Amino acid sequence: MKLKKRKKVYKVRNLPPGTMSYRGTKQSDDTHVEIINFDKDSYKKIESKRVEDAFNLKGNGNITWVNVNGLNDVKEIEKLGLHYNLHPLTLEDIVNTNHRPKLDEYDNYIFIVLKMIFFKEEDDLKYEQISLIVGEDFVLTFQEADGDVFNELRERISTPKGRIRGAGSDYLMYSILDAIVDNYITVIEAFGDKIEDLEDDVFVSSSDNEMINSIQLLKREVLKIRRSASPLREVISKLNKTESTFVEEKTHDYLRDLYDHIINVNENIEIYREMIWSLMDMYMSIISNKMNEVMKVLTIIATIFIPLTFIAGIYGMNFTNMPELQAKNGYFILLGVMVVLFILMLFYFRRKKWL
Amino acid sequence: MKLKKRKKVYKVRNLPPGTMSYRGTKQSDDTHVEIINFDKDSYKKIESKRVEDAFNLKGNGNITWVNVNGLNDVKEIEKLGLHYNLHPLTLEDIVNTNHRPKLDEYDNYIFIVLKMIFFKEEDDLKYEQISLIVGEDFVLTFQEADGDVFNELRERISTPKGRIRGAGSDYLMYSILDAIVDNYITVIEAFGDKIEDLEDDVFVSSSDNEMINSIQLLKREVLKIRRSASPLREVISKLNKTESTFVEEKTHDYLRDLYDHIINVNENIEIYREMIWSLMDMYMSIISNKMNEVMKVLTIIATIFIPLTFIAGIYGMNFTNMPELQAKNGYFILLGVMVVLFILMLFYFRRKKWL
Amino acid sequence: MKLKKRKKVYKVRNLPPGTMSYRGTKQSDDTHVEIINFDKDSYKKIESKRVEDAFNLKGNGNITWVNVNGLNDVKEIEKLGLHYNLHPLTLEDIVNTNHRPKLDEYDNYIFIVLKMIFFKEEDDLKYEQISLIVGEDFVLTFQEADGDVFNELRERISTPKGRIRGAGSDYLMYSILDAIVDNYITVIEAFGDKIEDLEDDVFVSSSDNEMINSIQLLKREVLKIRRSASPLREVISKLNKTESTFVEEKTHDYLRDLYDHIINVNENIEIYREMIWSLMDMYMSIISNKMNEVMKVLTIIATIFIPLTFIAGIYGMNFTNMPELQAKNGYFILLGVMVVLFILMLFYFRRKKWL
Amino acid sequence: MKLKKRKKVYKVRNLPPGTMSYRGTKQSDDTHVEIINFDKDSYKKIESKRVEDAFNLKGNGNITWVNVNGLNDVKEIEKLGLHYNLHPLTLEDIVNTNHRPKLDEYDNYIFIVLKMIFFKEEDDLKYEQISLIVGEDFVLTFQEADGDVFNELRERISTPKGRIRGAGSDYLMYSILDAIVDNYITVIEAFGDKIEDLEDDVFVSSSDNEMINSIQLLKREVLKIRRSASPLREVISKLNKTESTFVEEKTHDYLRDLYDHIINVNENIEIYREMIWSLMDMYMSIISNKMNEVMKVLTIIATIFIPLTFIAGIYGMNFTNMPELQAKNGYFILLGVMVVLFILMLFYFRRKKWL
Amino acid sequence: MKLKKRKKVYKVRNLPPGTMSYRGTKQSDDTHVEIINFDKDSYKKIESKRVEDAFNLKGNGNITWVNVNGLNDVKEIEKLGLHYNLHPLTLEDIVNTNHRPKLDEYDNYIFIVLKMIFFKEEDDLKYEQISLIVGEDFVLTFQEADGDVFNELRERISTPKGRIRGAGSDYLMYSILDAIVDNYITVIEAFGDKIEDLEDDVFVSSSDNEMINSIQLLKREVLKIRRSASPLREVISKLNKTESTFVEEKTHDYLRDLYDHIINVNENIEIYREMIWSLMDMYMSIISNKMNEVMKVLTIIATIFIPLTFIAGIYGMNFTNMPELQAKNGYFILLGVMVVLFILMLFYFRRKKWL
Repeated sequence: MKLKKRKKVYKVRNLPPGTMSYRGTKQSDDTHVEIINFDKDSYKKIESKRVEDAFNLKGNGNITWVNVNGLNDVKEIEKLGLHYNLHPLTLEDIVNTNHRPKLDEYDNYIFIVLKMIFFKEEDDLKYEQISLIVGEDFVLTFQEADGDVFNELRERISTPKGRIRGAGSDYLMYSILDAIVDNYITVIEAFGDKIEDLEDDVFVSSSDNEMINSIQLLKREVLKIRRSASPLREVISKLNKTESTFVEEKTHDYLRDLYDHIINVNENIEIYREMIWSLMDMYMSIISNKMNEVMKVLTIIATIFIPLTFIAGIYGMNFTNMPELQAKNGYFILLGVMVVLFILMLFYFRRKKWL
Repeated sequence: MKLKKRKKVYKVRNLPPGTMSYRGTKQSDDTHVEIINFDKDSYKKIESKRVEDAFNLKGNGNITWVNVNGLNDVKEIEKLGLHYNLHPLTLEDIVNTNHRPKLDEYDNYIFIVLKMIFFKEEDDLKYEQISLIVGEDFVLTFQEADGDVFNELRERISTPKGRIRGAGSDYLMYSILDAIVDNYITVIEAFGDKIEDLEDDVFVSSSDNEMINSIQLLKREVLKIRRSASPLREVISKLNKTESTFVEEKTHDYLRDLYDHIINVNENIEIYREMIWSLMDMYMSIISNKMNEVMKVLTIIATIFIPLTFIAGIYGMNFTNMPELQAKNGYFILLGVMVVLFILMLFYFRRKKWL
Repeated sequence: MKLKKRKKVYKVRNLPPGTMSYRGTKQSDDTHVEIINFDKDSYKKIESKRVEDAFNLKGNGNITWVNVNGLNDVKEIEKLGLHYNLHPLTLEDIVNTNHRPKLDEYDNYIFIVLKMIFFKEEDDLKYEQISLIVGEDFVLTFQEADGDVFNELRERISTPKGRIRGAGSDYLMYSILDAIVDNYITVIEAFGDKIEDLEDDVFVSSSDNEMINSIQLLKREVLKIRRSASPLREVISKLNKTESTFVEEKTHDYLRDLYDHIINVNENIEIYREMIWSLMDMYMSIISNKMNEVMKVLTIIATIFIPLTFIAGIYGMNFTNMPELQAKNGYFILLGVMVVLFILMLFYFRRKKWL
Repeated sequence: MKLKKRKKVYKVRNLPPGTMSYRGTKQSDDTHVEIINFDKDSYKKIESKRVEDAFNLKGNGNITWVNVNGLNDVKEIEKLGLHYNLHPLTLEDIVNTNHRPKLDEYDNYIFIVLKMIFFKEEDDLKYEQISLIVGEDFVLTFQEADGDVFNELRERISTPKGRIRGAGSDYLMYSILDAIVDNYITVIEAFGDKIEDLEDDVFVSSSDNEMINSIQLLKREVLKIRRSASPLREVISKLNKTESTFVEEKTHDYLRDLYDHIINVNENIEIYREMIWSLMDMYMSIISNKMNEVMKVLTIIATIFIPLTFIAGIYGMNFTNMPELQAKNGYFILLGVMVVLFILMLFYFRRKKWL
Repeated sequence: MKLKKRKKVYKVRNLPPGTMSYRGTKQSDDTHVEIINFDKDSYKKIESKRVEDAFNLKGNGNITWVNVNGLNDVKEIEKLGLHYNLHPLTLEDIVNTNHRPKLDEYDNYIFIVLKMIFFKEEDDLKYEQISLIVGEDFVLTFQEADGDVFNELRERISTPKGRIRGAGSDYLMYSILDAIVDNYITVIEAFGDKIEDLEDDVFVSSSDNEMINSIQLLKREVLKIRRSASPLREVISKLNKTESTFVEEKTHDYLRDLYDHIINVNENIEIYREMIWSLMDMYMSIISNKMNEVMKVLTIIATIFIPLTFIAGIYGMNFTNMPELQAKNGYFILLGVMVVLFILMLFYFRRKKWL
């Protein structure tokens, strides 16, 4: 066995640090930008290809949410970086989609990277990296592709009297994180259902390898989701302790609540993980039980008929001098003996609890 | 294998945070309220549908315990929230019954969420979320359904000379928690009994899948109860360190005792968990042993009779020229040879310790 | 599978906290009291049924050790509590024998609960709860039943020139704890011996379920002893850090030594635990090996004789026209062919290393 | 079984501490030195056998990177040590290639030992120890052999306008560490690919021992790489907290980023480790499934034909008086009975889901 | 199953604390003393039976190393204790050889207990307790038996110009510890070799129980060595933080290096432990694979020949009216049919990948 360096090198390693270049596995869609600008009284939404459309909105006391879909167009992102005064490493992290969830605090903004996990269609589970940049009066979000978990949130913003309309960028950040974590819960619940299904299937499944494959895939999926959820806990804990001036005191109550949710997610993942592992044990026991049953059938049949066949074999021999063969009722007596043997063996098996 | 989003979406996700709506799996009973008001000398108990009946009792120096059964009637709970000045997030947590046990301290009250586990009937194990709100002179409790573990406590309150009558809301809180933790112990002991039963059964069980199923269910149940008991430890530890003015110094002695109990519960859960896991191993060994025994029977029978049958087969052949067949005692000599072979093989098996 | 609340409810749950009532599983003996009073020069020992006999000894500068055997007589214990000014919770803990080892410090005394594990007879392992109360000039001990590990200690006290005679109540406490921990070591060593015995047995044991049972019982026993030893570590560590005025500086040297011992005990328990678990794995491998051997015997016999029997069957057929049957040496040629086949198969098995 | 001291003692143990002597397993190449000297405007590269060539470059405000390949020539390394004022233990650590990654801070330099893991050719994985010494205006690196991961870095230094040209020795150190950690990621990804390959193979592999061997080798490799990566986390964390005057504030941003990477590496190693372990379980299940299938075929064949063969045996007996044999259609009736039996057994197996 | 108190009680338990009596399992040799006295310029070595020979050497500014071999002669050790002013508990710990490695600091000396593990002969692994007492100008060492790891150290001391000659008792202590830890590394490497050997053997081993036994013994040995090495880490860490006046600043550099070594030892032990455990899994898989192969041979033979034998049985029946038997070529046609069946079954097995 030899490890091999993978040929399909889609990642340009060893770039000078701070260099931006899209390092993702996902075919990223064309970059397009969604700009939502609101305050208590006004609301405006712009769909555009150019980020500049957001700039003249800044600075008028409103909250601006710039949502960038697709990370291919590095140019546009650089323009955003320039405008909002972002650190080069932040820009590099945004376009590198293999990042571990983390939170970095800068003087003028908070930078959060995390994974968004959601069902795009009913059984189409999506993993997508999302980056959040939260400043005094703006929130920037960067997604790899179209499709996200914010539709309900967009609607709430567009509704004139929602609590969110009167709140600051910190509350918008919380609402975005809340929507993401809520979708973790939805996904985790789907795991629970799947495990319950498998637990039922495991008894009736024919002994092919499909069940093993299902369990293995589930293990993989749980490990993958854990990799996203586990550091998220630390991120939100750090967010709770932030001293940024634009995270207000009353928002902390909500963040604490969010922290409870993400701990809940992580605990459930651990429980499901343990249950999947024990499912494998269970499946092994069931296979063993089945094999045991198969063996018993074989043993019963063989134990009964092999000796009887031997006896029949005896009287099938062609010796000249075999007195029993001439006996008038020899055949019937022998049949009787065989029936008695048969019954004795049934008794034996019943005593052994094999029948 | 595909994960699927569950169709039966009984949870409205992505509500604006702080919105109250019942998010539980349990068919909650109709909301009704039980109000107990007492001090050293007086005692009054009211059963009602309206929470307002509790309000005029407040503020007269007595302790008021308002116990709300059923979380469907969000209106009534909101009225309580308004009257006792509760935070919106507290109200939201009360009606969301998928919460992890936790303790939040507010200026004017302590909020505790935990799970109540008890036997409603002899073998009907109930999991129910219970929320406690403890203020200077009141205790509010919220349960999902009728039926709880407080009957003995109610009786003690109604008894004129009980220690509880002279004590404050902090001691009532302790008494409620103590009753809940005591029921954890009862449930844990039932686990112990069940494990002992299974350990006995495991040797006599016929090799169907019932035993596997029992063990798996027990694993599940232990994981579920651990999920409730494990964070409770932290809750009570936090309660011990509270600086709330209405938790008196002498109550802390009782809370420390309670903390010892909950640690004891958690340690027992871990031990039972380990025992259940090793029960599975044990069961696997027993299946293996059984299979071994089955195999031995088969092997003994086959090893003895297959060669003998072969010999009989030889002399059943129809060759014209087979001198042995004509020998006068050929048949009897052959029978003798077979008996000798039979005995030799018995010896062989005895030497191998198979008999 | 259903969990059931145990019928035999020997524990009165939900008593008002601080209520004393014996909550143990052991049939406690009749309460009787042993009083030892000593200082550097004097020594007095009283066996009694009444605790009052100890009271007039108090206060004369001597050390008094009151050892109560049997916890049934709650009255006597209450009298002690009153005399020595003990907290109600302390009294409740003394008579509840399901307690986790712990140490509570009060103003006037230190309260320690722990488990005493010892061999009463050579193979009669006893678990008993023992409570220690250590004050300025007295030590109270409460045991569930007669029989303990202090005989050697009693003798040392009765010897005029022993170091213990000149020391205070803190040194007596240390001596008691030291005797208990020493017995843990003795018991742990018995585990070591048992494991070594089982490791030898595991190879020769016939494949019935006795070995599995032994291993399972040993697991149980180790888990049980760990439950007693593990919190003891914390207890003694706490004792080391006590600031009680009556624990002298020089006694701390001895307590540190004791702490080393209890850590040693816990480490050995973990090692034995790991060895027992791996013993189960080992046993499983041995069963598999045995089954493999059984299978090989079966396969060798069947593989050799089934084809030969088939050949014999061929020439046992009654076709009119079977030229070989008429051949003069047909029978002998066939026997030769069979011998050759037999030898070839032996070679085959040898090459496969089955013989 | 006996442990034996290894005969091939390639390590001179028990040398006086601080003694330098090459203690490595790798055939180290001849020592040769590569000197790169640069500042914002100038760039000079010297390949030499003598370290003295680096000395006259020192002190002119430029950054000097001295890269020593091959650790055999202890003399040259001692000259470096003398010139740069290195501690004897540092020199000893450089030539002992069995070191655990670590960071030592001295007054005038930081000393880092770590492992460089990289693919020399496509499937030739190399483990090599590399030591870094970072001073005010110099970086020394010591490698065991030719071939490293710095080619891209060398190129960047030679490029006039690179960020590195204007930065200090701390940024050069960061760049070196970054290149090393990036190669860890490459290697880890190769593990991921290998595991996926094995997961596919595991279902189709014939049941020889090759798969077991592959899994075992992979386990080994993961444990080995973990041994290198796990302490690296601590090293970089320590580096982040260094108070050395020559690590500038802005470099810390990059080091934090590096820290995120190494945590990512370690988490991935743990996940792959868990996946390999579960791969073994999976393989065991598949073997069991296969054996089950084999058993079923055997049992079906035996269960069908053994009873039929017995019946044929009955009518092959040579009793004089067997009425059935004379019956005109006896043979055909019997064949019919056999066909019926055959069909019944097929039904039986279908009901058992064996067919 | 019953635990039994061991009969061979070689340990006198429950002695008054502080009592010295040899509590070891090893037949300790006769006590004899080796005294080395040196400073920068002088060197003197005395072999003696009496410890008094060391006393007149003390106090002249030189370093005195008193090495006591054999712990039987409690008298001599007591004399040393008196002379060097040692605490009674220290003396007790020296002669009790079941101690866990630990470090105690007293005002006038540091007391270290640890295990010395070394190969006495090539495959004779020795575990021996060694106690170190380090004072201002003396080092005392106590060994259970002759034979140690200090020969090279003795030589270095006897060499006039060694660094050790000019250094203090702290450096001598370091040198002793370094020699001991170096031997741990040697032993650990022997484990590595043994594991590699077993990994090779595991594929070729015939399926008897020898391999299981080897693995189990190795597990045991690793657990044993871990018990010695694991607390050593803590001991050396404590030594690093000592504030004893006679441990000089520059010695701390060496102690830090030693600490790195012992961490390395512990990490390797953990890795080897994990590898041994996985070796057992591997062995189990190989047994399963073998059994699978055995089963396949049996199944192939049985599946081919049982049906054929049945057919032969049919035509061996003695019915009067069996038309086929009279057919001229019936026999040859039947043989043809059998050959066809045989070939079909071979195809079937090939498709199943059993051949």
